[in-house]
Amino acid sequence: MTTQDRPIAQSYGVYSEVGRLRKVLVCAPGLAHRRLTPTNSDDLLFDDVMWVENAQRDHADFVNKLRARGVDVVELHDLLAQTMAIPDARSWLLDRKIVANEVGLGLVDDTRAFLESLDPGQLAEYLIGGLATTDLPDDFRPEYVALAREGTGAREYLMPPLPNTLYTRDTTCWLYGGVTLNPLFWPARKDETLLMKALYEFHPDFVGATVWWGDPERQWGQATFEGGDIMPVGNGVVLMGMSERTSRQAITQVAAALFEKGAADHVVVAGMPKLRAAMHLDTVFTFADRDVVTLYPTIMDGVHTFSLRPADRAPGVDIVDHGSRPFVDVVAQALGLPGLRVIATGGDVYASERQQWDSGNNAVALEPGVVFTYDRNTQTNTLLRKAGVEVIEIVGAELGRGRGGGHCMTCPIIREPVSF
Amino acid sequence: MTTQDRPIAQSYGVYSEVGRLRKVLVCAPGLAHRRLTPTNSDDLLFDDVMWVENAQRDHADFVNKLRARGVDVVELHDLLAQTMAIPDARSWLLDRKIVANEVGLGLVDDTRAFLESLDPGQLAEYLIGGLATTDLPDDFRPEYVALAREGTGAREYLMPPLPNTLYTRDTTCWLYGGVTLNPLFWPARKDETLLMKALYEFHPDFVGATVWWGDPERQWGQATFEGGDIMPVGNGVVLMGMSERTSRQAITQVAAALFEKGAADHVVVAGMPKLRAAMHLDTVFTFADRDVVTLYPTIMDGVHTFSLRPADRAPGVDIVDHGSRPFVDVVAQALGLPGLRVIATGGDVYASERQQWDSGNNAVALEPGVVFTYDRNTQTNTLLRKAGVEVIEIVGAELGRGRGGGHCMTCPIIREPVSF
Amino acid sequence: MTTQDRPIAQSYGVYSEVGRLRKVLVCAPGLAHRRLTPTNSDDLLFDDVMWVENAQRDHADFVNKLRARGVDVVELHDLLAQTMAIPDARSWLLDRKIVANEVGLGLVDDTRAFLESLDPGQLAEYLIGGLATTDLPDDFRPEYVALAREGTGAREYLMPPLPNTLYTRDTTCWLYGGVTLNPLFWPARKDETLLMKALYEFHPDFVGATVWWGDPERQWGQATFEGGDIMPVGNGVVLMGMSERTSRQAITQVAAALFEKGAADHVVVAGMPKLRAAMHLDTVFTFADRDVVTLYPTIMDGVHTFSLRPADRAPGVDIVDHGSRPFVDVVAQALGLPGLRVIATGGDVYASERQQWDSGNNAVALEPGVVFTYDRNTQTNTLLRKAGVEVIEIVGAELGRGRGGGHCMTCPIIREPVSF
Amino acid sequence: MTTQDRPIAQSYGVYSEVGRLRKVLVCAPGLAHRRLTPTNSDDLLFDDVMWVENAQRDHADFVNKLRARGVDVVELHDLLAQTMAIPDARSWLLDRKIVANEVGLGLVDDTRAFLESLDPGQLAEYLIGGLATTDLPDDFRPEYVALAREGTGAREYLMPPLPNTLYTRDTTCWLYGGVTLNPLFWPARKDETLLMKALYEFHPDFVGATVWWGDPERQWGQATFEGGDIMPVGNGVVLMGMSERTSRQAITQVAAALFEKGAADHVVVAGMPKLRAAMHLDTVFTFADRDVVTLYPTIMDGVHTFSLRPADRAPGVDIVDHGSRPFVDVVAQALGLPGLRVIATGGDVYASERQQWDSGNNAVALEPGVVFTYDRNTQTNTLLRKAGVEVIEIVGAELGRGRGGGHCMTCPIIREPVSF
Repeated sequence: MTTQDRPIAQSYGVYSEVGRLRKVLVCAPGLAHRRLTPTNSDDLLFDDVMWVENAQRDHADFVNKLRARGVDVVELHDLLAQTMAIPDARSWLLDRKIVANEVGLGLVDDTRAFLESLDPGQLAEYLIGGLATTDLPDDFRPEYVALAREGTGAREYLMPPLPNTLYTRDTTCWLYGGVTLNPLFWPARKDETLLMKALYEFHPDFVGATVWWGDPERQWGQATFEGGDIMPVGNGVVLMGMSERTSRQAITQVAAALFEKGAADHVVVAGMPKLRAAMHLDTVFTFADRDVVTLYPTIMDGVHTFSLRPADRAPGVDIVDHGSRPFVDVVAQALGLPGLRVIATGGDVYASERQQWDSGNNAVALEPGVVFTYDRNTQTNTLLRKAGVEVIEIVGAELGRGRGGGHCMTCPIIREPVSF
Repeated sequence: MTTQDRPIAQSYGVYSEVGRLRKVLVCAPGLAHRRLTPTNSDDLLFDDVMWVENAQRDHADFVNKLRARGVDVVELHDLLAQTMAIPDARSWLLDRKIVANEVGLGLVDDTRAFLESLDPGQLAEYLIGGLATTDLPDDFRPEYVALAREGTGAREYLMPPLPNTLYTRDTTCWLYGGVTLNPLFWPARKDETLLMKALYEFHPDFVGATVWWGDPERQWGQATFEGGDIMPVGNGVVLMGMSERTSRQAITQVAAALFEKGAADHVVVAGMPKLRAAMHLDTVFTFADRDVVTLYPTIMDGVHTFSLRPADRAPGVDIVDHGSRPFVDVVAQALGLPGLRVIATGGDVYASERQQWDSGNNAVALEPGVVFTYDRNTQTNTLLRKAGVEVIEIVGAELGRGRGGGHCMTCPIIREPVSF
Repeated sequence: MTTQDRPIAQSYGVYSEVGRLRKVLVCAPGLAHRRLTPTNSDDLLFDDVMWVENAQRDHADFVNKLRARGVDVVELHDLLAQTMAIPDARSWLLDRKIVANEVGLGLVDDTRAFLESLDPGQLAEYLIGGLATTDLPDDFRPEYVALAREGTGAREYLMPPLPNTLYTRDTTCWLYGGVTLNPLFWPARKDETLLMKALYEFHPDFVGATVWWGDPERQWGQATFEGGDIMPVGNGVVLMGMSERTSRQAITQVAAALFEKGAADHVVVAGMPKLRAAMHLDTVFTFADRDVVTLYPTIMDGVHTFSLRPADRAPGVDIVDHGSRPFVDVVAQALGLPGLRVIATGGDVYASERQQWDSGNNAVALEPGVVFTYDRNTQTNTLLRKAGVEVIEIVGAELGRGRGGGHCMTCPIIREPVSF
Repeated sequence: MTTQDRPIAQSYGVYSEVGRLRKVLVCAPGLAHRRLTPTNSDDLLFDDVMWVENAQRDHADFVNKLRARGVDVVELHDLLAQTMAIPDARSWLLDRKIVANEVGLGLVDDTRAFLESLDPGQLAEYLIGGLATTDLPDDFRPEYVALAREGTGAREYLMPPLPNTLYTRDTTCWLYGGVTLNPLFWPARKDETLLMKALYEFHPDFVGATVWWGDPERQWGQATFEGGDIMPVGNGVVLMGMSERTSRQAITQVAAALFEKGAADHVVVAGMPKLRAAMHLDTVFTFADRDVVTLYPTIMDGVHTFSLRPADRAPGVDIVDHGSRPFVDVVAQALGLPGLRVIATGGDVYASERQQWDSGNNAVALEPGVVFTYDRNTQTNTLLRKAGVEVIEIVGAELGRGRGGGHCMTCPIIREPVSF
């Protein structure tokens, strides 16, 4: 804990999608991705296996470029290791993960003992990378492990691998001066938010943050919420994609919480068609400058737009149905802009479909007019450049196989506002 | 609540798989099955849509045959209606189901008001059959409903349809003198157990039962448990299929609970291959008489058998790995029998595969040597009859489309022991 | 061969969709359906396995009802057995089916010898029902059979089972005074048309028919054509569904052939969305009376209609694009009717989706205003009756599992015209 | 046609798997791969879309490395362009591809006219890359094109894209002094062999080759044969994987043809489990040196081995079932070697599964002890190097997405024998 009066985390906040990025959270590829195989990749939400060493190289290059531009980049394995060095934090997290419901009655004690024997860095690696029964050293293998049927080649996990931590965007969202701890849609990702809660409960740089909504220790039912759908664009406005993964049950709760605390006064909801290719709003729509967006028309043309506003009798929200009015028009008006310049996914029908798939619209801004995107979307990148946007490229051959780009791989912690 | 000193439910108990069946819980097909369409049937775990009227006729015939043989058959819609007539029970259940996380912030009040306006029978029908946003009458439709996007043809539920209540076997298990409230594997079935808890908390015929394990209001993680895998065969023995749906995490907890309370002293675990056709032990193995079983060799030959026994220092279990020893041999020995007579699924390679699929091995006994099975598995039924078993047929054309037979559709509440 | 000057088949012809049905070809369920298992049913285009005995009973009942109403019903096993009794026909067919490319170099002689040893009825049963390597008696099993790897449980066929012969509608179409021998879409169905060619080449009742188009011994590439999409409605008009299975490549060829021979002068094309539920036009649209149709609006509302007409310079067709004009309007005008009375699939959104799936719109007419449909589609049947149509019910519990109803199961050979 | 007495192609031949490679056929990525999208990639047998420019770069680098080592590399687009410059060849091929069955009656003339207007290089590009209806310039668009329903976004092809030409290994096989023109398993690949036939019929460097078996203008039924399963290892031996794609119906025919012509006297058949990951023998087993193989044990341990030998009364084959004898032992003996040194896929259970998937065992030899493999399979490459094999790396990030490596991408035309 900081010795100052005001916790460090009170100074965090994200006030726009394109203002100067000051501090950001990422997560490097690692053990979790070495667990990906053709057999299990679907369950772990990856389309293909990854060459992990090259993914690590490309991710490190991305981090280096961010740092070279003055961004304070923090990495999840590092933060988690620092957190696990705090005895209370370690106990808190292992008390929640190493339980009979997860590891099995007869494996709790030995698994806990093995994990307690590790140094904080090793422990953090297993927390993110997963712990298979076969990872237990002989000293920690009770007879009970027979039930896990390792002999049949089945791989059972005492802690599940969490390869989607690579996409730090989804798990927590800084929305103006506070953060949400998101209930994610897929059970396979649930524990990611628990790791983040450990940070916000114990890590000196994160403790004391204002939490608007969410708690991985509670049940959220249909109220699932993923950061890839959420954009605090400034001017008191938050965009929220209502998608397969982010539900109206969550959107209305978060909107009501933000309105009640005065953190925002307008949520623009993009009602998205339920298609795999459009899993999050940021897979088809991101900002490249204060008034420039890149989007995939095939999906965005089908969006149904709503506005949520504070209700007279709080808590609650008033709803405006914008009917057939284009999403970009509603967003522009909400920001006080005469309009948005739109850069569609480039190329012919084949190329634009491929580039959207390859995260071509998933740009993340360093500052107004400067974005990171994958190198492979050459036609969309060219269009962005022709529109005056500076494009810094990330190698996407490996990193892109989980269907996420620069926007997905970053969780901004401090980002400045822009004026409209 | 009963006025007697001892709750009625204290007299319940299931002491064998084939002893005289005295009381049983079933659930008739209804609204939930009228919701099944080709589009949603996969999500609701059904292989095909159903002609509901005929399914109801065939189910009623099954019930009539049970009653004609002296079984006290209780039906879930009826029990739930009786329960919902109790104001505290209604409040308890609606407080848990009509919440912002499930129905959405702006629909809680109206949905609750609509449901409170119903008589208990109607309410029970919606609790099992599901409540779509489009079911809300105009008087109870706030503007908020626009977010549910009914206009796009999407059907959103305020309470999910629960067509798998048809298979009462899975949700709760009477094991000797107490019951388990099972955490089911599929999220789509989770609320079934909550309905059952309402019965056991409030219905005068069920309150006061001894609950060995399980509570739908708690989280169980990997510890999922389904009655189709569980058989209290007598002699202090319980068979448990370790399958896709029933995990070692749950099996060991239940075994430890049974051992601790002295309810059983031996759990025989059938480690099953993870195949769709073998979703539960009772889809490939059931008892037809005290020493007669019907089974599907293609699956059962691959079973890996373990025994769980009380550990010296409770709570806990000792594990014996039976290696390549056949499951039926271990079971016979556990029951003190010299052996079990085995009736394999009948017919050639095609017919036996089809009959297993059509619940050919899913017999449920009325008493020793008298079982109910589907009519369509003519070859297996003939083999059972040749072995001296009386076979009473259920029409399976519609009921079987969710891949469950007589064993799946019955939850015995009182069944007598047999001697070995 | 008939001894008369004019072959019997010259008197055949289908001149409408609802005129008096005089002669029809069906195919009873049999060995091919006993081969269906959960493992292979997808490959064989069935959604579920079938209780074959009951399917046979229900099919026989359908046939009896047709005969009771004076229809001459011929059955494919019978016709094929009669054909196989003709030595030349047997040689012709076995020369084409028992070849190295299909059965394997080392199995040709023994397989042929076995089949030649059978009586015509047995041979017909294997031709339709398929011949597995395991069906070969020991006397006819060469060493070569080891390569078929029966030991691994794999079932290899020397002749494939043809369970879709049940749907005689698809394989050949009588269009006014001639017939087409259709190249079917799925390779699994290809041999059905070869069996039909054997009939038309050798059976005395079929030889001499006028063949407009098609020959299973030639290759047709993308030009696939299935009778479920084709309706000779009268007035020189033929309706053709352009679907996944019936392509523009085939439609234009057949239209040109009909126009050239003067058999028809107008083809109305229903450009159908490519959805599984709408595999054929007759799964979503059939006639119940001269001016009454039953249809599934969800699909039919999306149909794009074209007219094909004889081109000035034959062979060829002129094309009219009807744009957004409704299909039923174009059809009514083509028939010279002021309009068609439309009976939509009955019930709410759930029921109508289920009834379309259950072949609710797949009616086949006995005469104007008298149709056969499955019993299970009670709401659509009620609507038809309210519209004055006499509905005769077929039991659909088993027969419907291949997704075809009365229209699919009948290939009219003689049907009278109606006046418009 | 060559003016010499002996056609050039008579000097071609492949006499081993690892002898000095002299001449090889490859096919660069191009238009066909720019057609790949997330929507159609499954149908075109690709697991993911490709960054075509980088795939081209990496393929060019592979070609350059081959050439730098003295291999004469010929490329399919080039050869096809040279062939299309020959008027008879162009007519021959377009007569077979631009027919009513493929392009539709009303598009034949215009499509042919458009293609005839192209120069040979452009024509070759469309022949491999596919021709969509939308590719037709306005001058060549008849009214008929309306039936193709471009308006609905559907993309119809007048000539299908053939992205799997990248894997030249499969389409034709040089086996000692002659070649096979293979009937491929997937209809989507059928036209590849037709293009190759045009080469062998008309290109001066290919005309006059000895063709053992196969003709894309004939029908082959179940007799499908793909080069990835076939290895002429020397010593009169050919290895053939009996897989999903290469059937016993084809294997026995080819064996009989080779035996009859005296081209080989022993075919060793690897009866492979039917799994996607093991689609061809060369995805799990290749040679790296005269007595060194790299293989994936998980699959190869399950192989059932047979030997085919010339029968006493030709044509025909005698079959020896090797039962449980390991494939590598049978192969070693057939080659007269005391044994084969085996290099298994490297790494732990995760890594080896991933590397097999990433074509880790799909090595192609330049000469004994020198192979090309993908860079990403670092652990298997390391094991090969430790065994004394020189490994030259190909960048696999893009090229590998169709699940083929260096062995798949090369069709050796001249390869020297090795001594055993």
